[in-house]
Amino acid sequence: MKHVYNFNAGPAALPREVLQKAKEELLDFEDTGMSIMEHSHRGKHYEAVHEQAKNLLKELLSIPDEYEILFLQGGASLQFAMIPMNFMKQNQKPGYILTGSWSEKALKEAKKIGEAEEIVSGKSSNYSSIPEIPSLFSDDYTYVHVTSNNTIFGTQWASFDHLEHPFLIADMSSDILSKRFPVEKFGMIYAGAQKNLGPAGVTVVIMRKEVADKANKELPTILSYETHMKNRSLYNTPPTFSIYLLKLVLEWAKELGGLEELERRNKEKAKLIYDAIDESGGFYTGHAEKDSRSLMNITFTLQNEELTKQFLKEAQEQGFSGLAGHRSVGGCRASAYNAVPLEACQALKKFMIEFQEKQGN
Amino acid sequence: MKHVYNFNAGPAALPREVLQKAKEELLDFEDTGMSIMEHSHRGKHYEAVHEQAKNLLKELLSIPDEYEILFLQGGASLQFAMIPMNFMKQNQKPGYILTGSWSEKALKEAKKIGEAEEIVSGKSSNYSSIPEIPSLFSDDYTYVHVTSNNTIFGTQWASFDHLEHPFLIADMSSDILSKRFPVEKFGMIYAGAQKNLGPAGVTVVIMRKEVADKANKELPTILSYETHMKNRSLYNTPPTFSIYLLKLVLEWAKELGGLEELERRNKEKAKLIYDAIDESGGFYTGHAEKDSRSLMNITFTLQNEELTKQFLKEAQEQGFSGLAGHRSVGGCRASAYNAVPLEACQALKKFMIEFQEKQGN
Ligand SMILES: Cc1ncc(COP(=O)(O)O)c(C=O)c1O
Ligand SMILES: Cc1ncc(COP(=O)(O)O)c(C=O)c1O
Ligand SMILES: [Mg+2]
Ligand SMILES: [Mg+2]
Ligand SMILES: [Mg+2]
Ligand SMILES: [Mg+2]
Repeated sequence: MKHVYNFNAGPAALPREVLQKAKEELLDFEDTGMSIMEHSHRGKHYEAVHEQAKNLLKELLSIPDEYEILFLQGGASLQFAMIPMNFMKQNQKPGYILTGSWSEKALKEAKKIGEAEEIVSGKSSNYSSIPEIPSLFSDDYTYVHVTSNNTIFGTQWASFDHLEHPFLIADMSSDILSKRFPVEKFGMIYAGAQKNLGPAGVTVVIMRKEVADKANKELPTILSYETHMKNRSLYNTPPTFSIYLLKLVLEWAKELGGLEELERRNKEKAKLIYDAIDESGGFYTGHAEKDSRSLMNITFTLQNEELTKQFLKEAQEQGFSGLAGHRSVGGCRASAYNAVPLEACQALKKFMIEFQEKQGN
Repeated sequence: MKHVYNFNAGPAALPREVLQKAKEELLDFEDTGMSIMEHSHRGKHYEAVHEQAKNLLKELLSIPDEYEILFLQGGASLQFAMIPMNFMKQNQKPGYILTGSWSEKALKEAKKIGEAEEIVSGKSSNYSSIPEIPSLFSDDYTYVHVTSNNTIFGTQWASFDHLEHPFLIADMSSDILSKRFPVEKFGMIYAGAQKNLGPAGVTVVIMRKEVADKANKELPTILSYETHMKNRSLYNTPPTFSIYLLKLVLEWAKELGGLEELERRNKEKAKLIYDAIDESGGFYTGHAEKDSRSLMNITFTLQNEELTKQFLKEAQEQGFSGLAGHRSVGGCRASAYNAVPLEACQALKKFMIEFQEKQGN
């Protein structure tokens, strides 16, 4: 089998152990003679998977009892629409903190539904850092939306200490499960699975129960959070196989030692690549300000377009996959999610140093 | 491995060959050293799968060039909402033909968005047949919605010959790919994959291109068909693994001989079970009128609740899975989708006869 270092931004690397286990039981789930994909979503075998996935998330993220965990379809992009549909109120605007392209998109969708406001934006500095957050007064905003990790620009909130509002919503698509964070600060957290949680096709929503009660009624049934809460995410057919894989990923994470161990590993991994950048004397330039650097998506540029192309070409030949920056910003990006092994980051550091040396720098 | 006859209504049986192939390449897709789940949805390997799945559907269903094929998330239930959101017009109502619970739900969602009308309903006869369709005048209805196969009640449209309207929409979730039908009659066809097409988590939409152009603007981006058309179903991250499996199922269907061969097999399979009912002298009673019988979902009752329970219990012990009727109607239901082998239907017929004999009938 070809050896690959998978630095894709999402869909991304999955733990080998998880794929191995999925493979072993693909035709025969728990001696039932059927694939988990062939089981009814209303049968006891799938139901157990569904509940286990929720319980594991609850345990790993220390989610308080006042929260419900939902498994939805449509990606984080559907949440961009469902959030304002459910939570916008007449005569009160939601506020959005803009830290990258995904927060911009979230705000744009809110503005399609009603009035919504930008609270602060890092755009003028090309989203190279998390901007300073002004005091948020609860009367001003129905809810306040943030993006915890900016997949495209490679910045991340170092902490949420200075963020205070009774109804905070966070898009954690690209850093959920990568480090400890205070769930109880948020009314709602959401994340497409395809970075740290599993395959594409399922979106995790963690929501304080009282928040759903206060949501707008008269929505299309499937676009109302209340529907999914009441039906334990079984209102209609859930993406059962994606949820099964999510469960396997969570078991793997628990086995490994949970959030603390994942965070330790992620810091060690990211440091390797940031070191290669910082020690290059300007051959590589990191996009993010140091205090806003993402542990998940490490973005950098080379001195010119031609060199970048050469770098990406040689990297590809050496088995590195997914290192091109997002098509909207160019440059390079190494996404070192939970399932990317230390070894891959060591290899990338080595390759970066060697590439620089070869260029006579 | 336990031997099971899988008659689940959806998620349902998948072809063994498909699961086998998925298993073989689960960790290493086409010598890339990665699972297809780990590939970027913007990379050439996944892109090829995405386009192949579309091309195979086009070929198998003889979809004319004027149509686009979309792969969406959210299940058929999200389509219930997206259809009126996209296509309702002021001063003109859509019409719904009610042939079962799913068409009722579709109408209910339309009524949440605006005014919508029931054209005719089979409810008074407990949805045991497809009602006679009145002439449809195009000025009366923006669009006309039908459910081609009624998964819960076990009825199916024998033909669409008497159905004429410039904008017909069909929910074909439970019989797409089971037999030939005239695509060109419809402005839009949709189907959740989890019965005949693949695993849960992807919904196929087949839409005449001009129809999307005329859809309402100002919708949330992700809920607009135009978005998905313009972006070839890659506006956001698609459920890549579900689409990959869909592709494998379509390859299997083509290999087998396409729609004609599938229809031949489905007729042969359904006949076995309907024969067991018809030849039971009233021990088993079919729910559907003969001219409205479904080839996919065969619904029947026994003489009383107790006998039904006994039947389901013994069936389960003999390795038959999924024979209980939908929780809303009770009784028994055998779903004999494409991937259910002839052998399973032969075994069920045999079991039905033996069960009857044992009861001294
Ligand atoms: C932070 C963030 N939010 C939202 C999205 C959109 O997710 P999806 O493609 O599942 O809609 C992404 C995708 O990369 C993301 O990184
Ligand atoms: C005919 C029909 N329409 C719609 C649905 C709902 O599909 P989903 O669960 O994917 O939303 C079903 C599910 O069984 C169905 O049989
Ligand atoms: Mg997704
Ligand atoms: Mg970003
Ligand atoms: Mg579905
Ligand atoms: Mg029905």
